Amino acid sequence: AVVDKEVDFANYFCTYSYLYHQKEMLCDRVRMDAYHSAVFRNPHHFRGKVVLDVGTGSGILAIWSAQAGARKVYAVEATNMAEHARELARANGVADVVEVIQGSMEDVVLPEKVDVIISEWMGYFLLRESMFDSVICARDRWLKPDGVMYPSHARMWLAPIRSGLGEKKLEDLDIAMHDWSLFVEDTESYYGVNMNVLTKAYRAEHEKYYLKSAIWNNLHPNQVIGQAAVIKEIDCLTATVDEIQEVRAQVTMPIKLDMTRLAALAGWFDVHFRGSKQNPGTQEVELSTAPDENGGTHWGQQVFLLTPPLRVNEGDNVKVSFTMVRSKENHRLMDLEFTYELHESSGKQLPAITTKIYLE
Amino acid sequence: AVVDKEVDFANYFCTYSYLYHQKEMLCDRVRMDAYHSAVFRNPHHFRGKVVLDVGTGSGILAIWSAQAGARKVYAVEATNMAEHARELARANGVADVVEVIQGSMEDVVLPEKVDVIISEWMGYFLLRESMFDSVICARDRWLKPDGVMYPSHARMWLAPIRSGLGEKKLEDLDIAMHDWSLFVEDTESYYGVNMNVLTKAYRAEHEKYYLKSAIWNNLHPNQVIGQAAVIKEIDCLTATVDEIQEVRAQVTMPIKLDMTRLAALAGWFDVHFRGSKQNPGTQEVELSTAPDENGGTHWGQQVFLLTPPLRVNEGDNVKVSFTMVRSKENHRLMDLEFTYELHESSGKQLPAITTKIYLE
Ligand SMILES: Nc1ncnc2c1ncn2[C@@H]1O[C@H](CSCC[C@H](N)C(=O)O)[C@@H](O)[C@H]1O
Ligand SMILES: Nc1ncnc2c1ncn2[C@@H]1O[C@H](CSCC[C@H](N)C(=O)O)[C@@H](O)[C@H]1O
Repeated sequence: AVVDKEVDFANYFCTYSYLYHQKEMLCDRVRMDAYHSAVFRNPHHFRGKVVLDVGTGSGILAIWSAQAGARKVYAVEATNMAEHARELARANGVADVVEVIQGSMEDVVLPEKVDVIISEWMGYFLLRESMFDSVICARDRWLKPDGVMYPSHARMWLAPIRSGLGEKKLEDLDIAMHDWSLFVEDTESYYGVNMNVLTKAYRAEHEKYYLKSAIWNNLHPNQVIGQAAVIKEIDCLTATVDEIQEVRAQVTMPIKLDMTRLAALAGWFDVHFRGSKQNPGTQEVELSTAPDENGGTHWGQQVFLLTPPLRVNEGDNVKVSFTMVRSKENHRLMDLEFTYELHESSGKQLPAITTKIYLE
Repeated sequence: AVVDKEVDFANYFCTYSYLYHQKEMLCDRVRMDAYHSAVFRNPHHFRGKVVLDVGTGSGILAIWSAQAGARKVYAVEATNMAEHARELARANGVADVVEVIQGSMEDVVLPEKVDVIISEWMGYFLLRESMFDSVICARDRWLKPDGVMYPSHARMWLAPIRSGLGEKKLEDLDIAMHDWSLFVEDTESYYGVNMNVLTKAYRAEHEKYYLKSAIWNNLHPNQVIGQAAVIKEIDCLTATVDEIQEVRAQVTMPIKLDMTRLAALAGWFDVHFRGSKQNPGTQEVELSTAPDENGGTHWGQQVFLLTPPLRVNEGDNVKVSFTMVRSKENHRLMDLEFTYELHESSGKQLPAITTKIYLE
């Protein structure tokens, strides 16, 4: 699939050219604390080093890198935000260290190789936006053989959850379909055209929207009714685009709560800052987007509704086969497929159900 | 300016491929009644004739044309909605007359010239979306010399209004800027980066969004405080792209209400169905999107805030110079400029003020 760069700009990059959007990320304390700790607790990775910030946005990670003692920071940004990053570096006294380069990472040529690549490339459920592709490209071209990646590792998680979101969405769907039926009646009686032949397509469009689209949510930890499972681990130093283009996993998640309802699966991610084997960090830093009662991150979690939900009990096992591929129309969006199967503790096994979900 | 077709599809056409969006238009009674009357009160324009429906969407206008007795209707639609239009024509028994062709009007080749071009091409403030370009293209290629256009005429209107929207938006802006100042403080104290250098840019971004963007609104007629003025008249049979690419007008609008406030200008449009000079309609049909106390259309009116607003009195005159050009980045969006000048009935004349507004 060839990517039309202009379309990609219209669809994807344009939102990043607003300070409004950059600020949303800069206000995410969990995110900020993690990157801040990662940089400032590992001065040996930065002092006197050459750093590349892939997708610098407002320039924050580049400026921190400079403050931590980097000799040089290349800060690459595709959008006009580059100009603001430049101003910000200047105003914070690091203009001599931070060199902001406006352009696609894929096209940019650096004058030297770098010791560290730092980047905040994670989208919803880790891989939405497919920005890690650009980090891989940067790494393969510009990272020294003994260089380190910030973050160094990433994981995708899946967990069984209870939630009332499904009912809410079913209700919304009902309302939409009721409204449609009134519309069909009116159009027939006022305008002499019978629209009923489109009812099926209207329902399909709305089912996709309400039931088959991943729902952003900040879950409470007590909504997680079983053991979460890692469905993908990424070593940022060695991962290839091939490895992340499709994600497949089979996991079995034990239910830990009695007499409850498996209404959905939730997906989230975490990343770790560990440096590299030869050049480890002084102290591991984690950025987790798991459900957290102290408030979450701007990524929240992604809720994938299971319709119908299943009654479950402590000791039951949910077996899930998971596939995620990139959407044909837009490589930054994902098509998910879940096959879920309940193995009750009694030994009874319910027939497998398959659901498609769009992460758009 | 060359238009990238793929980008145009991503930005513009994609919304029209949803039944949800087509339904919104099909539920607009004022719009539907006008087109319905136009077709069925003028059977002599349709009976036995060849019709072209530019941008058929759900197919509604094509089906009406067939029901009114057309011999053949070519229904052209760029998006996948074409498939639904085809189904709808079939289900309503006019599949033998209505031929749905999926493609850009600009690329489509018809087997014959047509007697009538019908199209619902109007965007906000008439010309947003620039779809009339496609109608002009269709007309120049496919309309017979004595053919007729549905609608046949269009007008753009401007009027002085009172409204509390400006205060609301100023408040929103204040809140956003207050929020930003807290963010600047926090980012400095928690993360050691001073963001203040971006304050001006943040304000500019938000002023554009809150104050300098056209605001969709369904106004009450009593909010119109003076005489509305026609700023553009289009004869759909003869108009050229050159004529609509830029709109310039100078109008003077008398204030009709005492001791009130000129808070904004409002823009709307109407279109008429008159047939042509040689082949007039039996009865003129009008579709107006002016403020209406019986509820409006899905187009509403566009509100262009004047900041600051002006105190005005009955007998004052507001002189407005108006320019509208297409936005450089997207030819379907518009950049507006207003220079307004108050001539008080006392003879006093306030200095002219110029405001830019984006119709996005
Ligand atoms: N291939 C690419 N080349 C250059 N910039 C890219 C890119 N892909 C994504 N980006 C940019 O990467 C940024 C990701 S958001 C993160 C911004 C900043 N590093 C922060 O942590 O706050 C966006 O500004 C986006 O425009
Ligand atoms: N150049 C072009 N070629 C083909 N279709 C076009 C077009 N420009 C706009 N359209 C289509 O024109 C439609 C305009 S909306 C009007 C739909 C329908 N005629 C109705 O009155 O309800 C959209 O469906 C859009 O996709």
